[in-house]
Amino acid sequence: MSKTANAGGHEGSAPHLHRLVLFSDAVFAIAITLLAIEIHPPEHWTSIADLFGQMGHKLWAYAVSFAVIGVYWISHRRIFARLRTANGVLDVLNLVVLGLIGLLPLVTELLWEHGGAAAIVYLGLVTAIGFALAALWGYAAFAGELTGPVHRGEALFTLARVAIAPGLMCGLIFFALNHAWGLILLALALGAFIAGGRYMRRQAEQAVEIDQPEEASA
Amino acid sequence: MSKTANAGGHEGSAPHLHRLVLFSDAVFAIAITLLAIEIHPPEHWTSIADLFGQMGHKLWAYAVSFAVIGVYWISHRRIFARLRTANGVLDVLNLVVLGLIGLLPLVTELLWEHGGAAAIVYLGLVTAIGFALAALWGYAAFAGELTGPVHRGEALFTLARVAIAPGLMCGLIFFALNHAWGLILLALALGAFIAGGRYMRRQAEQAVEIDQPEEASA
Amino acid sequence: MSKTANAGGHEGSAPHLHRLVLFSDAVFAIAITLLAIEIHPPEHWTSIADLFGQMGHKLWAYAVSFAVIGVYWISHRRIFARLRTANGVLDVLNLVVLGLIGLLPLVTELLWEHGGAAAIVYLGLVTAIGFALAALWGYAAFAGELTGPVHRGEALFTLARVAIAPGLMCGLIFFALNHAWGLILLALALGAFIAGGRYMRRQAEQAVEIDQPEEASA
Amino acid sequence: MSKTANAGGHEGSAPHLHRLVLFSDAVFAIAITLLAIEIHPPEHWTSIADLFGQMGHKLWAYAVSFAVIGVYWISHRRIFARLRTANGVLDVLNLVVLGLIGLLPLVTELLWEHGGAAAIVYLGLVTAIGFALAALWGYAAFAGELTGPVHRGEALFTLARVAIAPGLMCGLIFFALNHAWGLILLALALGAFIAGGRYMRRQAEQAVEIDQPEEASA
Repeated sequence: MSKTANAGGHEGSAPHLHRLVLFSDAVFAIAITLLAIEIHPPEHWTSIADLFGQMGHKLWAYAVSFAVIGVYWISHRRIFARLRTANGVLDVLNLVVLGLIGLLPLVTELLWEHGGAAAIVYLGLVTAIGFALAALWGYAAFAGELTGPVHRGEALFTLARVAIAPGLMCGLIFFALNHAWGLILLALALGAFIAGGRYMRRQAEQAVEIDQPEEASA
Repeated sequence: MSKTANAGGHEGSAPHLHRLVLFSDAVFAIAITLLAIEIHPPEHWTSIADLFGQMGHKLWAYAVSFAVIGVYWISHRRIFARLRTANGVLDVLNLVVLGLIGLLPLVTELLWEHGGAAAIVYLGLVTAIGFALAALWGYAAFAGELTGPVHRGEALFTLARVAIAPGLMCGLIFFALNHAWGLILLALALGAFIAGGRYMRRQAEQAVEIDQPEEASA
Repeated sequence: MSKTANAGGHEGSAPHLHRLVLFSDAVFAIAITLLAIEIHPPEHWTSIADLFGQMGHKLWAYAVSFAVIGVYWISHRRIFARLRTANGVLDVLNLVVLGLIGLLPLVTELLWEHGGAAAIVYLGLVTAIGFALAALWGYAAFAGELTGPVHRGEALFTLARVAIAPGLMCGLIFFALNHAWGLILLALALGAFIAGGRYMRRQAEQAVEIDQPEEASA
Repeated sequence: MSKTANAGGHEGSAPHLHRLVLFSDAVFAIAITLLAIEIHPPEHWTSIADLFGQMGHKLWAYAVSFAVIGVYWISHRRIFARLRTANGVLDVLNLVVLGLIGLLPLVTELLWEHGGAAAIVYLGLVTAIGFALAALWGYAAFAGELTGPVHRGEALFTLARVAIAPGLMCGLIFFALNHAWGLILLALALGAFIAGGRYMRRQAEQAVEIDQPEEASA
């Protein structure tokens, strides 16, 4: 099969990719579910409003981190959907991404217990995950040739978006907590990334005849 | 392949659905298993009867939450069994469902430590999950056209059942704790949903020639 | 396809079984890994021998519970390897098995903190899991007709073995802790189950032409 | 199919291997994610530098254990990529590997709270996992004949590498913490294992016509 042939390794590449996805999905799922495990109900509360009042900041941090992991899961899924094969370098880069994802429950706890400076640590981790995932994509698309043929411009745009979008979004959300007009910036940034992505994909479709991955067996 | 062809996306849809299912199953499994992690045996107990006496309310809450997650897992499985393809909106709706599922261990802890008002919070979360899953199904069946052709009446019935059945069941169980005749209501509601489901499926089978999903590769 | 055709349901049965397996494996894996999460190193220890001295009973309980979950995972895998299709009753019976598996970390904690009476609770849970899994197999093989054709004698032997072997083994291990000659009983029981299983399988092979499940796609 | 035919069991071997992989990946993923769950932010900290100062040793232990589990996951994946079939002995050997992996979060906690002697316990566990995984590979390649035809020399080299490489690496990292020139030893050892692996694989490719596993369906 051409798929196995261009993998160039001595083990089949479809099972390799499949296990990377299995393992990654389990790590994402555990990290996302552990976000809630350190949240405990308060000892005393008088009414439901009081309960939400006391737990509000924790639930808020839970929602933000859930969104962050969700966004990175979607990015991860989309990147892996474009891979044709895998190698040892991809294993290592993927482990770095997952290792940083695994720290999110910890910094989420930090976020709800301490404000201010904790938000910087949080943003730093979110940004670091973005760069690690971008490194994975950059390696896969350019250095490792693990994808099918890609449109250079679109792949570079994806690289930039994966690297900076989640950190930027997250920073703007924190900013908008104090300055409501930050929501406008957030909407603009979101719109720019979506519009840019669509434009780039159209470019890619016109430029090259993308040979659609027929991953019927995965 | 016709399956890939009608997906209309630039990535294969079978792997997309497969990863959604992998990820969701992991989250369901973790949430269901974490239900027990906060239950610890009491410091002192004199006999097995005493042990169960002290832990009874926690085991009861465990059983209820296990049933709730189990019911939602079954609903989730049935809905996803009818999907042919997936898109970004489905990703987000699914994340909302999972984000609410992830809070169940927390509200279960609330339930066993506080009675009364905690039951309302619990019911609120169960209902919210139902509405989120119904939104996912509604989007998939009507707006996003992610399913094969569906019988309108049957799809609407499914929508209503997914949205209200678990919350209603759960409320009736709580009600039956104080008023034993609530069990009759529970049995009636359960029977109505099952009978309604069978009737609707028969309607659907008569009305349209359902083209059976041949998901041999998933 | 004949596989889908004899499933007789309105949803494909291969994905249904696949999701049951995905979900079950995740629950087994989480329960088995959570066994260790409540074990913490002692505050003070002077040497490695002292460390093991202080943690020995916890590591012992960990090993026993790991073996119990491992044995049940193997039983579960073997049972599911013989299923051809799945239905809602199987979902529910499987949830009951998983719900009991999820309690093992809790009773393991009980076991290492309290001796004696806790061992009875532990044995009770192990036995209950055995009966739940036997009920699942019994339903699948006899009532629900979810398997291919089975040899009646062999299926009944499997039923009995699944129900009583793990509880009996576990009880004999506990017995052997106080009475070393219990190990002889343990070896005899183990031998009997293995020999019985082999005999029954030979009977089954002679009696019926087992049509080997060609589950290439699962 | 030749694959099923040479399995020689009464159940299909592809699903058996698939479930082993599903279950193992879930255990690896949970163990790797639980590494972080016992790390909590300090009560008081004045600046981000202070925060990292207080948490540095924990993050360091997290990174080391993440790398250890990552390396073993990669070894596990590579070994399983070469298996053609599975049996009950493989189940048990795999459970032993996973049971030791499940103890890593515990010894990681030990490592960050106590120095010195804890490092010996840690190294002991890492080495034990290596030997367990080597036993699995040795059984699969030589005794159980679960692989396709293997080159004897290459399989023995793999056996030795799986058994001693991670423990040796980990020991050298600990050594390099006190003696910087240990890094040279580490680089030499790493280079030797990689060079040896390449040499052996070339030998194997020249010696036997490896029939490439066409695991399209796994």
